[in-house]
Amino acid sequence: MLPITRLTGMAPGRSRAVRAGKLVYTVAVADTADKDMRKQAQETLAKIERHLKEAGTDKSRLLSCTVYICDMALKPQMNEAWDAWVDMANPPQRACIGATLEDPHMIEIVAVAAAQD
Amino acid sequence: MLPITRLTGMAPGRSRAVRAGKLVYTVAVADTADKDMRKQAQETLAKIERHLKEAGTDKSRLLSCTVYICDMALKPQMNEAWDAWVDMANPPQRACIGATLEDPHMIEIVAVAAAQD
Amino acid sequence: MLPITRLTGMAPGRSRAVRAGKLVYTVAVADTADKDMRKQAQETLAKIERHLKEAGTDKSRLLSCTVYICDMALKPQMNEAWDAWVDMANPPQRACIGATLEDPHMIEIVAVAAAQD
Repeated sequence: MLPITRLTGMAPGRSRAVRAGKLVYTVAVADTADKDMRKQAQETLAKIERHLKEAGTDKSRLLSCTVYICDMALKPQMNEAWDAWVDMANPPQRACIGATLEDPHMIEIVAVAAAQD
Repeated sequence: MLPITRLTGMAPGRSRAVRAGKLVYTVAVADTADKDMRKQAQETLAKIERHLKEAGTDKSRLLSCTVYICDMALKPQMNEAWDAWVDMANPPQRACIGATLEDPHMIEIVAVAAAQD
Repeated sequence: MLPITRLTGMAPGRSRAVRAGKLVYTVAVADTADKDMRKQAQETLAKIERHLKEAGTDKSRLLSCTVYICDMALKPQMNEAWDAWVDMANPPQRACIGATLEDPHMIEIVAVAAAQD
């Protein structure tokens, strides 16, 4: 049976990261309520990085990212934050999807990574 | 080679659940056409639970859930159904995304779980 | 440690496919700018198939597909392309979600497959 480890999320009934065997699933939104996509993206990516570290891995082991943004016209600002953050030698498969998010969130990222051990 | 088991979906060319090795992928929408988010969420979650059971696992082994809803203003009703349903000791990583779904569906859930063996 | 192989994506900082252990994650959009859902779906599915092959697997090993389309009214056209393409004996779990995509894309597909070895 795959061993499962869960890191508590922002509300009961949700985990901010779950590790099962060699895979880690995580999600993040920005804490900032600033309506600035670049800033929210930076903060969301920093939080993904923190979750990965807490789950025993890092962004060089990312496999797949789904980036939901509230307005496709702001994709360039998200991409600036992404390009500055991502491990260019080890990029994940990524999809960027326009969706409705809960105010004040402009971006939400779901990621799958491989463990480091 | 990872062994794969597939459970037939609602239409040809789709599976309602697929198990590969120790992972199970599944999806559900409500059968009810009632335009009531709480009710549709309850029914969709019950169906996810059924699919997990058919695939040889259960909700305590959920890793990741993506909940698509048709109207973010109805997220509180979805959350009521979620909180009553989820295994609070073993919650998955969860994202709730506002999207367009096929009428009459107000909610669609995609889940990844670990097998029980 | 799971071995990871990455296939370069359309832009730096993204992979078109990532293999980790026995799983392959991939994404595709159509190259055509034609505003024709059936055509874009055919091209996107053909590209998914190419990515799977490059990553050492094929569509008979698909586990999970998320199909994002720009207009739910065009789902029947997408489904025609899907039904003609999918391995009917080995269909994945599939979700079709209405979302905003970057112009001129009308469809984007994210897929998870098992390797062939």
